Amino acid sequence: MDPYKTLREETYEANCQLPRLGLVLFTFGNVSAVDRDRAVFGIKPSGVPYENLHPQDIVIMDYDARVVDGTMRPSSDTKTHALLYKSWENIGGITHTHSTYAVAWAQAGLDIPIFGTTHADHTHQPIPCASVLTDAMIEGDYEHETGHQIMNCFQDKGLSNQEMEMILLQNHGPFTWGKDAAKSVYNAAVLEEIARMAFLTLQINPNTHPLKDSLRLKHYERKHGKNAYYGQGC
Amino acid sequence: MDPYKTLREETYEANCQLPRLGLVLFTFGNVSAVDRDRAVFGIKPSGVPYENLHPQDIVIMDYDARVVDGTMRPSSDTKTHALLYKSWENIGGITHTHSTYAVAWAQAGLDIPIFGTTHADHTHQPIPCASVLTDAMIEGDYEHETGHQIMNCFQDKGLSNQEMEMILLQNHGPFTWGKDAAKSVYNAAVLEEIARMAFLTLQINPNTHPLKDSLRLKHYERKHGKNAYYGQGC
Amino acid sequence: MDPYKTLREETYEANCQLPRLGLVLFTFGNVSAVDRDRAVFGIKPSGVPYENLHPQDIVIMDYDARVVDGTMRPSSDTKTHALLYKSWENIGGITHTHSTYAVAWAQAGLDIPIFGTTHADHTHQPIPCASVLTDAMIEGDYEHETGHQIMNCFQDKGLSNQEMEMILLQNHGPFTWGKDAAKSVYNAAVLEEIARMAFLTLQINPNTHPLKDSLRLKHYERKHGKNAYYGQGC
Amino acid sequence: MDPYKTLREETYEANCQLPRLGLVLFTFGNVSAVDRDRAVFGIKPSGVPYENLHPQDIVIMDYDARVVDGTMRPSSDTKTHALLYKSWENIGGITHTHSTYAVAWAQAGLDIPIFGTTHADHTHQPIPCASVLTDAMIEGDYEHETGHQIMNCFQDKGLSNQEMEMILLQNHGPFTWGKDAAKSVYNAAVLEEIARMAFLTLQINPNTHPLKDSLRLKHYERKHGKNAYYGQGC
Repeated sequence: MDPYKTLREETYEANCQLPRLGLVLFTFGNVSAVDRDRAVFGIKPSGVPYENLHPQDIVIMDYDARVVDGTMRPSSDTKTHALLYKSWENIGGITHTHSTYAVAWAQAGLDIPIFGTTHADHTHQPIPCASVLTDAMIEGDYEHETGHQIMNCFQDKGLSNQEMEMILLQNHGPFTWGKDAAKSVYNAAVLEEIARMAFLTLQINPNTHPLKDSLRLKHYERKHGKNAYYGQGC
Repeated sequence: MDPYKTLREETYEANCQLPRLGLVLFTFGNVSAVDRDRAVFGIKPSGVPYENLHPQDIVIMDYDARVVDGTMRPSSDTKTHALLYKSWENIGGITHTHSTYAVAWAQAGLDIPIFGTTHADHTHQPIPCASVLTDAMIEGDYEHETGHQIMNCFQDKGLSNQEMEMILLQNHGPFTWGKDAAKSVYNAAVLEEIARMAFLTLQINPNTHPLKDSLRLKHYERKHGKNAYYGQGC
Repeated sequence: MDPYKTLREETYEANCQLPRLGLVLFTFGNVSAVDRDRAVFGIKPSGVPYENLHPQDIVIMDYDARVVDGTMRPSSDTKTHALLYKSWENIGGITHTHSTYAVAWAQAGLDIPIFGTTHADHTHQPIPCASVLTDAMIEGDYEHETGHQIMNCFQDKGLSNQEMEMILLQNHGPFTWGKDAAKSVYNAAVLEEIARMAFLTLQINPNTHPLKDSLRLKHYERKHGKNAYYGQGC
Repeated sequence: MDPYKTLREETYEANCQLPRLGLVLFTFGNVSAVDRDRAVFGIKPSGVPYENLHPQDIVIMDYDARVVDGTMRPSSDTKTHALLYKSWENIGGITHTHSTYAVAWAQAGLDIPIFGTTHADHTHQPIPCASVLTDAMIEGDYEHETGHQIMNCFQDKGLSNQEMEMILLQNHGPFTWGKDAAKSVYNAAVLEEIARMAFLTLQINPNTHPLKDSLRLKHYERKHGKNAYYGQGC
């Protein structure tokens, strides 16, 4: 009996959502899910096509990115996931993709401005684009340093990982997270759509204005505030 | 026996069209249908994914946005629907989405110009973009005021809700309506396509001219005028 | 026994290709097929959704746009088809759509330049955009005059309807034709792709040059010339 | 018993991937696979729709583009494939498509800059765009000269066909290759996505910078270098 069966299944299911949501070409993405009680997380094995993936292929890792269980090599981005789980104890799942529009903004090196309520329904700030890593970081422990760059960006901008569950890494692509793996995948799809809408908005009117404060906060609060009235309250 | 069974089924079917037509990501949209005899409307419950939706989940509301029947919390946009049904007695269904190209125009804060016959087949005016609500409206009864903003826009521009069955709300997205819920969904899909074509048109030729009056009216009249010859006359 | 059974089936099958090829939203398109021996053509009935269409719904018309057989009202664009069949005796099928990128070029009011071999494989000229009809034409016998406008454009530009099987009508959309209805639908899909590629090309490099003559003619001739070596020669 | 059965099946399977990956409209593409022991390659017959293709239709050719086995006419691009197999002994499969975004860059006549890690995961250089052939080349043995133009471009730019498995031909479209036919198709899909991302990047920020050297090499090396740690090492 596999003690990580549930964690593997959660991780497997969340990974399978990526191609269904149109967020990945071939193997360009990975999702992990954490088990806080055991202090381990499950992650997709590296380079395995989604259609060949099975729950038992999920590799179980600790927060220092050491393999705890599993026979396959974990995602090459595993150390980024590990550092985020170690540093941010409130998150339950992480998704990394190379989805088209989010990557385009990352390659453009720009934060995604907040132009509308679709964005504000999910976060009341622009989506940050963390600067490209320094040469020393890239030539050092690259994927671990990628995790540091994410946290540095959040610290510099005074962002909360609960109010902002997504980031772009310049010249690379998006990372998203959430209370569990499924929520991190949801956020990856939302980010892709926000990125697409913002691109189109600027093509139509390069001089348009960001959402004003009252509407920005209203939409965020009606969904996430203490008097939220969106959803079924469960 | 549920007295609202037919209304719930109409509302349910119309909501299910949204993902089929590619107009919604996750739960980003809602459709309502009215029963004028009973003075109630059915609307999608808030935050329920379309694939989990059942006819019995539809919430029955009166025109003052009070729940008449149903156990779930209605769409957070319910008060907008309610005010439109109360004010515009000739409409039978309302759709709200965050479809990509319509949102992009709303975020750009611009009316959609009338560039061709695809547009004129459905309305002979530009698609209006209502200004963003004032802070007082946003901080007041927000969704109710959203309904007022729609009606204010139609009044200011002298538009008829029968000749123009769609609107954009600046920084938010589209609302569409029609003689029944199915027609409001049809209009939501037409608006998205018109928005996409207008975006592409301006990318190809920013100096192109709007449709001239004779052609604008010809296409509208052949489909909607008293001598219309489009369709099977039923 | 229906004497037009074969013609109706050909027309029906060709119409059904439009939604499969992503060329139509709802009922925004129509295909006709001609029977030269009987001097009649079959055409889609007006306003009928493709999923509800049956072969027996196809309306049989003569070249003066009079109904010969059938109980439904024919496409509102029927007179355009009729004039083309009457004037161009070598064509066997006609397709009209409001496909997105072709409409965008029509709304931009521009010919589609010939930028590459995908275009030259099908025609060695830019795709013409016929000017918008005069007010007199629009207020007269509009759909009949639309056919005249197509032929006027071909005459003015010295184009052959065999070497160029497609046209845009300014502020409206594309018409395509071919040796039979299936070929006219094929051309509608090719035009949409050429229109999309040309749009993207100009976005990437507004100063790019059209295809040079030698390559333009080479690709056209290897597929359509007397020494053509593309295809299986049947 | 067909001595080319395995080669035909490999070629057939790889061709069938093109429509599944959205890389071709109608017959706009072809894949070949080589058998180095027999010094022959299999290639798609010309002008045959993918849905009508059978393994036995694959035409077997030698490196001088002479038919060795098969009853159908081979792809009109066969001489380009033949020259590449003859000149580059390390490649096992070749794909040619007219995929939309790759063609748009080819029609724009520009190399695709390296803007991000999606690109660097596959090659550490911009994707080259070979100049349009001279009139003499076009009017001579055109498809053979197309192969020469590809090799000239690689020689001029000092590129290795193992580090760069893709090219654009100006005003035409992409060719890709790899260790086998499946890898060449994979590369065709990767190129299309890189082309799309680069287009969007420049639309969002025309002044963005290419990927810096350290990150460009890091991503390429972690996947392809001697200490690569991407994938399962098999």
